[in-house]
Amino acid sequence: MPNLTISSGRFISFEGSEGSGKSTQITRLIGRLRHAGREIVSTREPGGTDLGERIRDILLHKDEGQGMCPESELLLFAAARAQLVRTVIIPALQRGAIVISDRYLDSSTVYQGAARNLAPGPVAAVNGFAIGDVLPHLTVVIDVPTEVSLARVRQRSAGQPDRIEREDAPFFKKVREAYLQLGRNWPQRVVIFDGTQSPDDIENKIWAEVQKRLG
Amino acid sequence: MPNLTISSGRFISFEGSEGSGKSTQITRLIGRLRHAGREIVSTREPGGTDLGERIRDILLHKDEGQGMCPESELLLFAAARAQLVRTVIIPALQRGAIVISDRYLDSSTVYQGAARNLAPGPVAAVNGFAIGDVLPHLTVVIDVPTEVSLARVRQRSAGQPDRIEREDAPFFKKVREAYLQLGRNWPQRVVIFDGTQSPDDIENKIWAEVQKRLG
Repeated sequence: MPNLTISSGRFISFEGSEGSGKSTQITRLIGRLRHAGREIVSTREPGGTDLGERIRDILLHKDEGQGMCPESELLLFAAARAQLVRTVIIPALQRGAIVISDRYLDSSTVYQGAARNLAPGPVAAVNGFAIGDVLPHLTVVIDVPTEVSLARVRQRSAGQPDRIEREDAPFFKKVREAYLQLGRNWPQRVVIFDGTQSPDDIENKIWAEVQKRLG
Repeated sequence: MPNLTISSGRFISFEGSEGSGKSTQITRLIGRLRHAGREIVSTREPGGTDLGERIRDILLHKDEGQGMCPESELLLFAAARAQLVRTVIIPALQRGAIVISDRYLDSSTVYQGAARNLAPGPVAAVNGFAIGDVLPHLTVVIDVPTEVSLARVRQRSAGQPDRIEREDAPFFKKVREAYLQLGRNWPQRVVIFDGTQSPDDIENKIWAEVQKRLG
Protein backbone atom coordinates (compact mmCIF):
# COMPACT_ATOMS: atom_id res chain seq x y z
CA MET A 1 0.00 0.00 0.00
CA PRO A 2 1.52 3.37 -0.96
CA ASN A 3 2.06 6.13 1.55
CA LEU A 4 -0.51 8.65 0.41
CA THR A 5 0.96 11.44 2.49
CA ILE A 6 3.78 11.66 -0.05
CA SER A 7 1.44 11.45 -3.02
CA SER A 8 0.34 14.55 -4.87
CA GLY A 9 -3.03 13.02 -5.84
CA ARG A 10 -6.28 13.92 -4.15
CA PHE A 11 -9.31 11.73 -3.53
CA ILE A 12 -12.88 13.03 -3.20
CA SER A 13 -15.86 10.75 -2.61
CA PHE A 14 -19.50 11.72 -3.01
CA GLU A 15 -22.18 10.22 -0.80
CA GLY A 16 -25.88 10.64 -0.18
CA SER A 17 -29.15 8.81 -0.56
CA GLU A 18 -30.68 8.09 -3.93
CA GLY A 19 -32.16 11.25 -5.43
CA SER A 20 -29.86 13.56 -3.47
CA GLY A 21 -28.50 15.24 -6.59
CA LYS A 22 -25.09 13.61 -6.26
CA SER A 23 -24.62 12.88 -9.96
CA THR A 24 -25.35 16.46 -11.00
CA GLN A 25 -22.82 17.81 -8.53
CA ILE A 26 -20.17 15.28 -9.54
CA THR A 27 -20.51 16.35 -13.17
CA ARG A 28 -20.23 20.00 -12.21
CA LEU A 29 -17.20 19.54 -9.98
CA ILE A 30 -15.42 17.52 -12.65
CA GLY A 31 -16.08 20.31 -15.14
CA ARG A 32 -14.56 22.90 -12.82
CA LEU A 33 -11.51 20.78 -12.02
CA ARG A 34 -10.87 19.98 -15.70
CA HIS A 35 -11.13 23.69 -16.43
CA ALA A 36 -8.41 24.19 -13.80
CA GLY A 37 -6.19 21.80 -15.77
CA ARG A 38 -6.12 18.83 -13.41
CA GLU A 39 -6.22 15.18 -14.50
CA ILE A 40 -9.48 13.74 -13.22
CA VAL A 41 -10.26 10.07 -12.74
CA SER A 42 -13.98 9.61 -12.28
CA THR A 43 -15.32 6.32 -10.99
CA ARG A 44 -18.29 4.81 -9.23
CA GLU A 45 -19.26 2.15 -6.74
CA PRO A 46 -20.10 -0.61 -7.03
CA GLY A 47 -18.24 -0.84 -10.32
CA GLY A 48 -15.41 1.10 -11.87
CA THR A 49 -13.53 -2.05 -12.97
CA ASP A 50 -14.53 -5.02 -15.13
CA LEU A 51 -14.89 -7.12 -11.99
CA GLY A 52 -16.73 -4.35 -10.17
CA GLU A 53 -19.25 -3.90 -12.97
CA ARG A 54 -20.04 -7.62 -12.90
CA ILE A 55 -20.56 -7.39 -9.15
CA ARG A 56 -22.68 -4.26 -9.64
CA ASP A 57 -24.92 -6.22 -11.95
CA ILE A 58 -25.46 -8.88 -9.27
CA LEU A 59 -26.03 -6.29 -6.54
CA LEU A 60 -28.41 -3.93 -8.22
CA HIS A 61 -30.33 -5.79 -10.86
CA LYS A 62 -30.60 -9.50 -10.20
CA ASP A 63 -33.00 -10.97 -7.70
CA GLU A 64 -32.00 -13.96 -5.66
CA GLY A 65 -34.83 -16.45 -5.22
CA GLN A 66 -34.38 -16.55 -1.46
CA GLY A 67 -33.12 -12.96 -1.12
CA MET A 68 -29.56 -11.85 -0.65
CA CYS A 69 -28.44 -11.89 2.98
CA PRO A 70 -26.98 -8.58 4.25
CA GLU A 71 -23.64 -10.24 4.95
CA SER A 72 -23.27 -11.26 1.29
CA GLU A 73 -24.32 -7.81 0.15
CA LEU A 74 -21.61 -6.20 2.30
CA LEU A 75 -18.97 -8.66 1.11
CA LEU A 76 -19.86 -8.11 -2.56
CA PHE A 77 -19.58 -4.33 -2.20
CA ALA A 78 -16.25 -4.82 -0.44
CA ALA A 79 -14.98 -7.13 -3.20
CA ALA A 80 -15.76 -4.51 -5.84
CA ARG A 81 -14.14 -1.82 -3.70
CA ALA A 82 -10.94 -3.78 -3.09
CA GLN A 83 -10.43 -4.15 -6.84
CA LEU A 84 -11.25 -0.49 -7.51
CA VAL A 85 -8.78 0.75 -4.90
CA ARG A 86 -5.89 -1.38 -6.13
CA THR A 87 -6.34 -1.12 -9.88
CA VAL A 88 -7.79 2.38 -10.33
CA ILE A 89 -7.61 4.67 -7.29
CA ILE A 90 -4.07 4.01 -6.03
CA PRO A 91 -2.41 4.21 -9.48
CA ALA A 92 -4.27 7.48 -10.20
CA LEU A 93 -3.26 9.04 -6.89
CA GLN A 94 0.33 7.95 -7.41
CA ARG A 95 0.54 9.88 -10.68
CA GLY A 96 -1.03 12.95 -9.08
CA ALA A 97 -4.57 12.79 -10.45
CA ILE A 98 -7.72 13.86 -8.65
CA VAL A 99 -9.97 10.86 -8.11
CA ILE A 100 -13.71 11.47 -7.81
CA SER A 101 -15.76 8.48 -6.74
CA ASP A 102 -19.53 8.27 -6.77
CA ARG A 103 -19.83 6.38 -3.43
CA TYR A 104 -17.04 4.69 -1.47
CA LEU A 105 -16.62 3.06 1.94
CA ASP A 106 -19.19 5.23 3.73
CA SER A 107 -21.96 3.73 1.59
CA SER A 108 -21.25 0.35 3.21
CA THR A 109 -21.21 1.85 6.69
CA VAL A 110 -24.55 3.51 5.99
CA TYR A 111 -26.43 1.03 3.80
CA GLN A 112 -25.22 -2.36 4.97
CA GLY A 113 -24.35 -1.25 8.49
CA ALA A 114 -26.92 1.23 9.75
CA ALA A 115 -29.80 0.54 7.36
CA ARG A 116 -29.48 -3.28 7.27
CA ASN A 117 -28.54 -3.48 10.93
CA LEU A 118 -25.20 -5.25 10.59
CA ALA A 119 -22.96 -4.61 13.62
CA PRO A 120 -20.62 -1.62 13.11
CA GLY A 121 -17.48 -3.52 14.20
CA PRO A 122 -17.55 -6.25 11.54
CA VAL A 123 -18.63 -3.74 8.86
CA ALA A 124 -15.63 -1.55 9.69
CA ALA A 125 -13.34 -4.61 9.70
CA VAL A 126 -14.49 -5.77 6.26
CA ASN A 127 -14.27 -2.19 4.93
CA GLY A 128 -10.76 -1.81 6.33
CA PHE A 129 -9.66 -5.08 4.75
CA ALA A 130 -11.04 -3.92 1.39
CA ILE A 131 -9.52 -0.42 1.29
CA GLY A 132 -6.31 -0.76 3.32
CA ASP A 133 -5.38 2.81 4.31
CA VAL A 134 -6.86 4.58 1.30
CA LEU A 135 -9.35 7.08 2.73
CA PRO A 136 -10.71 10.08 0.78
CA HIS A 137 -9.21 13.49 1.52
CA LEU A 138 -12.74 14.87 1.37
CA THR A 139 -16.16 13.20 1.42
CA VAL A 140 -19.05 15.30 0.13
CA VAL A 141 -22.41 14.19 1.57
CA ILE A 142 -25.45 15.74 -0.06
CA ASP A 143 -28.33 15.66 2.38
CA VAL A 144 -31.99 15.88 1.42
CA PRO A 145 -35.10 15.06 3.48
CA THR A 146 -36.33 11.49 3.06
CA GLU A 147 -39.53 12.57 1.30
CA VAL A 148 -37.56 14.53 -1.32
CA SER A 149 -35.25 11.59 -1.89
CA LEU A 150 -38.15 9.14 -2.28
CA ALA A 151 -40.13 11.42 -4.62
CA ARG A 152 -37.09 11.95 -6.89
CA VAL A 153 -36.32 8.22 -6.99
CA ARG A 154 -39.89 7.33 -7.94
CA GLN A 155 -39.97 9.91 -10.69
CA ARG A 156 -36.58 8.87 -12.05
CA SER A 157 -37.06 5.12 -12.05
CA ALA A 158 -40.49 5.37 -13.70
CA GLY A 159 -41.69 1.95 -12.66
CA GLN A 160 -38.31 0.21 -13.06
CA PRO A 161 -36.63 0.69 -9.66
CA ASP A 162 -33.49 -1.30 -8.89
CA ARG A 163 -33.09 -3.48 -5.79
CA ILE A 164 -31.94 -0.65 -3.51
CA GLU A 165 -34.47 1.81 -4.85
CA ARG A 166 -37.32 -0.54 -3.95
CA GLU A 167 -36.58 -0.10 -0.25
CA ASP A 168 -39.18 1.77 1.81
CA ALA A 169 -39.26 5.11 3.65
CA PRO A 170 -37.90 3.84 7.03
CA PHE A 171 -34.88 2.42 5.17
CA PHE A 172 -34.14 5.78 3.52
CA LYS A 173 -34.65 7.54 6.85
CA LYS A 174 -32.01 5.32 8.47
CA VAL A 175 -29.68 6.05 5.55
CA ARG A 176 -30.09 9.78 6.01
CA GLU A 177 -29.53 9.66 9.77
CA ALA A 178 -26.44 7.50 9.34
CA TYR A 179 -24.90 9.97 6.87
CA LEU A 180 -25.53 12.86 9.25
CA GLN A 181 -23.89 10.82 12.02
CA LEU A 182 -20.82 10.26 9.82
CA GLY A 183 -20.48 14.03 9.46
CA ARG A 184 -20.42 14.33 13.26
CA ASN A 185 -18.00 11.41 13.68
CA TRP A 186 -15.49 12.46 10.98
CA PRO A 187 -15.67 16.26 10.70
CA GLN A 188 -12.15 16.46 9.24
CA ARG A 189 -13.15 14.32 6.26
CA VAL A 190 -16.93 14.34 5.86
CA VAL A 191 -18.78 17.55 4.99
CA ILE A 192 -22.58 17.68 4.79
CA PHE A 193 -24.20 19.92 2.13
CA ASP A 194 -27.86 20.90 2.14
CA GLY A 195 -29.28 19.33 -1.03
CA THR A 196 -32.47 21.38 -0.97
CA GLN A 197 -30.59 24.48 -2.15
CA SER A 198 -30.36 25.32 -5.86
CA PRO A 199 -27.85 23.24 -7.84
CA ASP A 200 -25.77 26.40 -8.46
CA ASP A 201 -25.59 27.17 -4.75
CA ILE A 202 -24.58 23.62 -3.87
CA GLU A 203 -21.98 23.62 -6.65
CA ASN A 204 -20.41 26.85 -5.35
CA LYS A 205 -20.30 25.61 -1.78
CA ILE A 206 -18.69 22.31 -2.79
CA TRP A 207 -16.15 24.18 -4.92
CA ALA A 208 -15.24 26.44 -2.00
CA GLU A 209 -14.74 23.40 0.22
CA VAL A 210 -12.63 21.62 -2.41
CA GLN A 211 -10.39 24.67 -2.82
CA LYS A 212 -10.03 25.06 0.93
CA ARG A 213 -9.26 21.40 1.62
CA LEU A 214 -7.32 20.32 -1.43
CA GLY A 215 -5.30 23.47 -2.02
CA MET B 1 -27.67 -17.74 14.42
CA PRO B 2 -28.99 -21.05 15.76
CA ASN B 3 -27.33 -22.87 18.60
CA LEU B 4 -25.98 -25.92 16.79
CA THR B 5 -25.29 -27.79 19.99
CA ILE B 6 -29.04 -28.35 20.30
CA SER B 7 -29.45 -29.25 16.65
CA SER B 8 -29.59 -32.86 15.51
CA GLY B 9 -28.03 -32.07 12.12
CA ARG B 10 -24.43 -32.85 11.26
CA PHE B 11 -22.09 -30.94 8.98
CA ILE B 12 -19.14 -32.50 7.12
CA SER B 13 -16.86 -30.51 4.82
CA PHE B 14 -14.41 -31.98 2.32
CA GLU B 15 -11.14 -30.23 1.54
CA GLY B 16 -8.01 -30.88 -0.46
CA SER B 17 -6.14 -29.62 -3.47
CA GLU B 18 -7.42 -30.07 -7.02
CA GLY B 19 -7.02 -33.68 -8.12
CA SER B 20 -7.06 -35.05 -4.58
CA GLY B 21 -10.00 -37.37 -5.26
CA LYS B 22 -12.41 -35.32 -3.17
CA SER B 23 -15.37 -35.63 -5.53
CA THR B 24 -15.14 -39.44 -5.71
CA GLN B 25 -15.12 -39.72 -1.94
CA ILE B 26 -17.99 -37.29 -1.50
CA THR B 27 -20.12 -39.39 -3.87
CA ARG B 28 -19.23 -42.58 -2.01
CA LEU B 29 -19.94 -41.13 1.44
CA ILE B 30 -23.27 -39.75 0.30
CA GLY B 31 -24.17 -43.20 -1.04
CA ARG B 32 -23.37 -44.84 2.29
CA LEU B 33 -25.26 -42.24 4.33
CA ARG B 34 -28.34 -42.44 2.10
CA HIS B 35 -28.23 -46.21 2.46
CA ALA B 36 -28.31 -45.62 6.22
CA GLY B 37 -31.53 -43.65 5.78
CA ARG B 38 -30.32 -40.13 6.56
CA GLU B 39 -31.43 -36.99 4.73
CA ILE B 40 -28.38 -35.64 2.93
CA VAL B 41 -27.91 -32.09 1.69
CA SER B 42 -24.99 -31.95 -0.69
CA THR B 43 -23.52 -28.62 -1.69
CA ARG B 44 -20.35 -27.02 -2.97
CA GLU B 45 -18.27 -23.87 -2.73
CA PRO B 46 -18.17 -21.44 -4.29
CA GLY B 47 -21.79 -21.93 -5.27
CA GLY B 48 -24.67 -23.89 -3.81
CA THR B 49 -27.13 -21.00 -4.16
CA ASP B 50 -28.26 -18.90 -7.13
CA LEU B 51 -26.09 -16.06 -5.87
CA GLY B 52 -23.19 -18.38 -5.13
CA GLU B 53 -23.25 -19.90 -8.61
CA ARG B 54 -23.07 -16.44 -10.15
CA ILE B 55 -20.10 -15.66 -7.94
CA ARG B 56 -18.54 -19.02 -8.83
CA ASP B 57 -18.74 -18.07 -12.47
CA ILE B 58 -16.82 -14.85 -11.81
CA LEU B 59 -14.24 -16.59 -9.62
CA LEU B 60 -13.42 -19.60 -11.72
CA HIS B 61 -14.05 -18.80 -15.33
CA LYS B 62 -13.85 -15.12 -16.10
CA ASP B 63 -10.58 -13.28 -16.46
CA GLU B 64 -10.27 -9.73 -15.31
CA GLY B 65 -8.24 -7.60 -17.68
CA GLN B 66 -6.00 -6.37 -14.88
CA GLY B 67 -6.23 -9.54 -12.78
CA MET B 68 -8.32 -10.06 -9.70
CA CYS B 69 -6.64 -8.85 -6.51
CA PRO B 70 -6.43 -11.47 -3.72
CA GLU B 71 -8.54 -9.29 -1.41
CA SER B 72 -11.43 -9.31 -3.92
CA GLU B 73 -11.07 -13.04 -4.41
CA LEU B 74 -11.34 -13.67 -0.66
CA LEU B 75 -14.35 -11.34 -0.34
CA LEU B 76 -16.16 -13.02 -3.24
CA PHE B 77 -15.67 -16.49 -1.75
CA ALA B 78 -16.90 -15.12 1.58
CA ALA B 79 -19.98 -13.55 -0.05
CA ALA B 80 -20.94 -16.89 -1.61
CA ARG B 81 -20.30 -18.67 1.70
CA ALA B 82 -22.42 -16.24 3.75
CA GLN B 83 -25.39 -16.90 1.48
CA LEU B 84 -24.84 -20.67 1.51
CA VAL B 85 -24.68 -20.82 5.31
CA ARG B 86 -27.84 -18.80 5.86
CA THR B 87 -30.07 -20.16 3.12
CA VAL B 88 -28.93 -23.80 2.81
CA ILE B 89 -26.71 -25.09 5.63
CA ILE B 90 -28.45 -23.68 8.70
CA PRO B 91 -31.99 -24.66 7.60
CA ALA B 92 -30.77 -28.20 6.76
CA LEU B 93 -29.03 -28.63 10.12
CA GLN B 94 -32.08 -27.32 11.92
CA ARG B 95 -34.25 -30.04 10.43
CA GLY B 96 -31.70 -32.71 11.30
CA ALA B 97 -30.10 -33.36 7.90
CA ILE B 98 -26.48 -34.24 7.23
CA VAL B 99 -24.85 -31.50 5.20
CA ILE B 100 -21.89 -32.43 3.00
CA SER B 101 -20.04 -29.51 1.47
CA ASP B 102 -17.36 -29.75 -1.20
CA ARG B 103 -15.09 -27.04 0.30
CA TYR B 104 -15.94 -24.56 3.05
CA LEU B 105 -14.11 -21.98 5.15
CA ASP B 106 -10.77 -23.86 5.20
CA SER B 107 -10.43 -23.34 1.45
CA SER B 108 -10.21 -19.59 2.05
CA THR B 109 -7.68 -20.02 4.84
CA VAL B 110 -5.57 -22.19 2.55
CA TYR B 111 -6.00 -20.67 -0.92
CA GLN B 112 -6.46 -16.97 -0.25
CA GLY B 113 -4.55 -16.93 3.02
CA ALA B 114 -1.55 -19.23 2.81
CA ALA B 115 -1.20 -19.59 -0.98
CA ARG B 116 -1.95 -15.94 -1.91
CA ASN B 117 -0.13 -14.58 1.13
CA LEU B 118 -2.97 -12.63 2.71
CA ALA B 119 -2.42 -12.11 6.44
CA PRO B 120 -4.10 -14.83 8.57
CA GLY B 121 -5.83 -12.35 10.91
CA PRO B 122 -7.92 -10.52 8.30
CA VAL B 123 -8.69 -13.78 6.48
CA ALA B 124 -10.02 -15.28 9.72
CA ALA B 125 -12.01 -12.10 10.43
CA VAL B 126 -13.68 -12.11 7.01
CA ASN B 127 -14.34 -15.87 7.29
CA GLY B 128 -15.85 -15.42 10.74
CA PHE B 129 -18.11 -12.63 9.50
CA ALA B 130 -19.29 -14.86 6.65
CA ILE B 131 -20.07 -18.04 8.60
CA GLY B 132 -20.98 -16.76 12.07
CA ASP B 133 -20.57 -19.77 14.38
CA VAL B 134 -21.36 -22.50 11.85
CA LEU B 135 -18.30 -24.75 11.82
CA PRO B 136 -18.31 -28.31 10.43
CA HIS B 137 -18.48 -31.19 12.93
CA LEU B 138 -15.89 -32.95 10.77
CA THR B 139 -13.60 -31.73 8.00
CA VAL B 140 -12.16 -34.45 5.75
CA VAL B 141 -8.89 -33.38 4.09
CA ILE B 142 -7.64 -35.67 1.33
CA ASP B 143 -3.91 -35.22 0.98
CA VAL B 144 -1.90 -36.11 -2.12
CA PRO B 145 1.64 -35.11 -3.10
CA THR B 146 1.83 -31.98 -5.23
CA GLU B 147 3.04 -33.88 -8.30
CA VAL B 148 0.06 -36.25 -8.16
CA SER B 149 -2.32 -33.35 -7.79
CA LEU B 150 -0.79 -31.46 -10.73
CA ALA B 151 -0.72 -34.51 -12.99
CA ARG B 152 -4.38 -35.33 -12.30
CA VAL B 153 -5.43 -31.72 -12.88
CA ARG B 154 -3.63 -31.55 -16.21
CA GLN B 155 -5.16 -34.80 -17.39
CA ARG B 156 -8.64 -33.79 -16.26
CA SER B 157 -8.73 -30.27 -17.65
CA ALA B 158 -7.37 -31.39 -21.04
CA GLY B 159 -6.15 -27.98 -22.11
CA GLN B 160 -9.07 -26.05 -20.59
CA PRO B 161 -7.92 -25.35 -17.02
CA ASP B 162 -9.90 -22.86 -14.92
CA ARG B 163 -8.32 -19.87 -13.18
CA ILE B 164 -7.25 -21.77 -10.06
CA GLU B 165 -6.07 -24.80 -11.99
CA ARG B 166 -3.67 -22.63 -14.02
CA GLU B 167 -1.60 -21.91 -10.90
CA ASP B 168 1.89 -23.39 -10.79
CA ALA B 169 3.60 -26.04 -8.66
CA PRO B 170 4.78 -23.73 -5.82
CA PHE B 171 1.17 -22.57 -5.39
CA PHE B 172 -0.09 -26.15 -5.05
CA LYS B 173 2.75 -26.93 -2.66
CA LYS B 174 1.71 -24.05 -0.39
CA VAL B 175 -1.87 -25.32 -0.56
CA ARG B 176 -0.83 -28.79 0.53
CA GLU B 177 1.31 -27.54 3.40
CA ALA B 178 -1.45 -25.25 4.62
CA TYR B 179 -3.96 -28.13 4.73
CA LEU B 180 -1.53 -30.28 6.71
CA GLN B 181 -1.05 -27.37 9.12
CA LEU B 182 -4.83 -27.09 9.58
CA GLY B 183 -4.86 -30.74 10.65
CA ARG B 184 -2.28 -29.94 13.31
CA ASN B 185 -4.07 -26.76 14.43
CA TRP B 186 -7.59 -28.23 14.66
CA PRO B 187 -7.23 -31.95 15.41
CA GLN B 188 -10.74 -32.14 16.91
CA ARG B 189 -12.33 -31.08 13.63
CA VAL B 190 -9.87 -31.64 10.77
CA VAL B 191 -8.76 -35.17 9.81
CA ILE B 192 -6.15 -35.80 7.11
CA PHE B 193 -6.56 -38.87 4.84
CA ASP B 194 -3.81 -40.21 2.62
CA GLY B 195 -5.14 -39.78 -0.91
CA THR B 196 -2.57 -42.11 -2.49
CA GLN B 197 -4.37 -45.16 -1.11
CA SER B 198 -6.98 -46.99 -3.19
CA PRO B 199 -10.38 -45.28 -3.40
CA ASP B 200 -11.93 -48.21 -1.50
CA ASP B 201 -9.43 -47.88 1.34
CA ILE B 202 -9.97 -44.13 1.61
CA GLU B 203 -13.73 -44.63 1.55
CA ASN B 204 -13.60 -47.15 4.40
CA LYS B 205 -11.38 -44.93 6.53
CA ILE B 206 -13.60 -41.90 6.01
CA TRP B 207 -16.65 -44.00 6.86
CA ALA B 208 -15.06 -45.22 10.09
CA GLU B 209 -14.26 -41.62 11.07
CA VAL B 210 -17.76 -40.42 10.25
CA GLN B 211 -19.31 -43.18 12.37
CA LYS B 212 -16.95 -42.45 15.25
CA ARG B 213 -17.46 -38.69 15.20
CA LEU B 214 -21.07 -38.28 14.18
CA GLY B 215 -22.59 -41.22 16.05
